[in-house]
Amino acid sequence: MKVASSIYGPVQEDLRLVEDTLDRVKHVENFPALSKMLAHVLDGGGKRIRPAIALLAGKFGDYNIDLHVPLAASIELLHTATLVHDDVIDASPSRRGRPTANELFSNSASVMLGDYMFAHSAELIARTDSTAVVRLFAHTIMAIAGGELHQDMSAYEYGQDTMQYFGRIEGKTASLFATSAEGGAMVAGCTDSEREALRAYGLNVGMAFQVVDDILDFAGDETEMGKPIGSDLMQGTLTLPSLLLMERYPKANPVRKAFRGRKPKTETVAEAVRMVLDSDILNETYAVARDFRDRAVSSLRTLPDSAARGSLEDIADYVLERRA
Amino acid sequence: MKVASSIYGPVQEDLRLVEDTLDRVKHVENFPALSKMLAHVLDGGGKRIRPAIALLAGKFGDYNIDLHVPLAASIELLHTATLVHDDVIDASPSRRGRPTANELFSNSASVMLGDYMFAHSAELIARTDSTAVVRLFAHTIMAIAGGELHQDMSAYEYGQDTMQYFGRIEGKTASLFATSAEGGAMVAGCTDSEREALRAYGLNVGMAFQVVDDILDFAGDETEMGKPIGSDLMQGTLTLPSLLLMERYPKANPVRKAFRGRKPKTETVAEAVRMVLDSDILNETYAVARDFRDRAVSSLRTLPDSAARGSLEDIADYVLERRA
Repeated sequence: MKVASSIYGPVQEDLRLVEDTLDRVKHVENFPALSKMLAHVLDGGGKRIRPAIALLAGKFGDYNIDLHVPLAASIELLHTATLVHDDVIDASPSRRGRPTANELFSNSASVMLGDYMFAHSAELIARTDSTAVVRLFAHTIMAIAGGELHQDMSAYEYGQDTMQYFGRIEGKTASLFATSAEGGAMVAGCTDSEREALRAYGLNVGMAFQVVDDILDFAGDETEMGKPIGSDLMQGTLTLPSLLLMERYPKANPVRKAFRGRKPKTETVAEAVRMVLDSDILNETYAVARDFRDRAVSSLRTLPDSAARGSLEDIADYVLERRA
Repeated sequence: MKVASSIYGPVQEDLRLVEDTLDRVKHVENFPALSKMLAHVLDGGGKRIRPAIALLAGKFGDYNIDLHVPLAASIELLHTATLVHDDVIDASPSRRGRPTANELFSNSASVMLGDYMFAHSAELIARTDSTAVVRLFAHTIMAIAGGELHQDMSAYEYGQDTMQYFGRIEGKTASLFATSAEGGAMVAGCTDSEREALRAYGLNVGMAFQVVDDILDFAGDETEMGKPIGSDLMQGTLTLPSLLLMERYPKANPVRKAFRGRKPKTETVAEAVRMVLDSDILNETYAVARDFRDRAVSSLRTLPDSAARGSLEDIADYVLERRA
C-alpha cells in the first residue's frame, strides 16, 4: 500500500483505524480455520481506495470517526467478499499474484467465506445507525450481483455493444465506488447537492477504474497483476478494447473466432491481444477512461476546495495512472 | 402450503401479504433471466414456517403490518438464499422434487443469485427502520455461514461427537428460527423477557426441525422429500442417527467404512441406513427432537395465552410430525 502515504492525505491516519477494524474481523473466536481464510483474503494487498473515498467524502460534512471508520471497513469487507465469489465463479487460481481462496481452500468454503463476509459487512454498516445507509449498500450489492450475472450470461456472446459494456461495468464496479462516496456523505449529514456531487465523483472514478482494469488485461505487467494477459477473453468477457477491435474488423477477427465454441484457444486470444496492441485501440480506450476521470473531477467543483477534495482529485489521477 | 391454513391461524392473512412482497421481489425490471431464477427458487414449495414465526412473535407486542410483513418476507428470502448456496456447495441436483438452481442454470449464476437475494433481504430488513434488527440478522447469517463451513470442513471425519453436532445444527438451522422469533418481537417492541422467551422458543423449534430433518434422511419418503435416502452420509455429514450408530458399534461400522477414502459407496451407505432402521436409534433420535419441542413450548409459558401462542405451539407439533 505505498499508494496510501502520498494521496490519502487527510484520512491516512484514520485508514489505520480501518485496518484495525479489519484485523478484528479477521479474528473469529474459536474458529481458527475461518480466521485464517479471512486473513488470507483481507491481506491480499488491496489498495483500500474505496474506504479512502468513503472517509474523504465524510470530510465534506460532520465527519465522525466512530461512524465513518466502521463504514469504510465494511466497504472493504464487502468489496473483498465480491472478489472471493468472483474468483469462485471464474475459477481463478490467483489474484494479485497470490492464490485465491478457492485455490487454497475449496469452492464450497469460499462461497461460505464470502457469505460470512457479506453478513459481517452488513453488521458493520448497521453500526452507522442509519437504515438508509444499509439500504443504499443493499441496493449496491444487488447491482453488483446483477452486473456479474449479466456478464456471466453474456459470456462468449459477441453480439454486444459498448452501451451494454458501460451498463455492465457500472453495475459490477462503479456502483460500489459511487456508494462509497455517497455513504460517506450520508453518514456525515451532507446536503443533497453535496451528496449527489460526491456520488457522481465516485461513479465516474469507478468507471475510469474499470476501463483501466480492462486495458491492463491487454497491456499490464503479468507479474504485478498476478494474472495472465488476455484473461477476460479467455473467460468470454468482452471489454472495451475487444469491442473496439470487433468494431474495426466486423467480419473476421480473432475474438469472434475465440468465442465460437466457447473454448478459446490461447493462440487465438494472443492474436487478439497482439492486434489490439498493434493498433491505437488502447489510446482510444485510455481517452474514454480519461473522460470519466475528468467528469469525476468536475463533479467536485461545487464542493469547497480542501485537502479532502485535493485527495479525491489525486485518487482520480492515480486510478488512471496505475499499472496493476 | 396446505400446512398454513390449519396452524398459522392469526397470521394466515398476513402471510398472503408476505407472498405479495416476495412476488414483487421476483420481478426485476429489465432483467427477465434474473426474474425467472428468483421465481424458480421462491416458488419451491417452502412452507413459510420462519415468516409465520416472525409474524406470530410480533403479536405479543405492537404488531405493525408495515414492518412485520417486510421482516417476514426478508426472512424467507434469506432462508432461500442460504438454500441456493447450499445446493451449489453440495452439488445437489434437486430439492423438494424440483431441479435446483445450480442444476437448472449454473453454479456461477447460482452463487450470484444467492448474493442478490441476501442483499435484497438486507434491503427488506432495513425497512423495519431498526439497525438493531439488521445487526441481529447479520450475526445470524454469520452463524449460518460459520455452521456450514464447520460442516464442510468436518466432512467425512468420523471423530465427531454429539455436542459438535448440536453446535453445528444450532448455527446452520436453529439460529435463523431463533432470530425469526426474536426479530418479530423486537420490531413489536416487546419487553426483554418476552423477547428472550420467544428467542428460546425459536431456537428449540429450530433444533427440533433439524433433528427431524436428519431423521427423514434415513426414514423419509424419497418422492415427498425429492432427494434420495442417505444423502447426508453420501456427502460425509454425520447427523444424530449416524453418530448414535457409531456409538453403538465403535469398532466396525458401515459409516466408518463409507467415510474412509471420502468416496462413500452406495451399498455401504445403504447398509448404514438399514442398521439404523433395524435398531431403535430413530426412536432415540425422535426423543431428542421431542425434548427440543417440549422446551420450545415451555419457553412460551411466561407469555399470555392467545391465538398466537396456540399457533406457535401447533408449529412446534407440526415440526415434529412432518414427513417431508
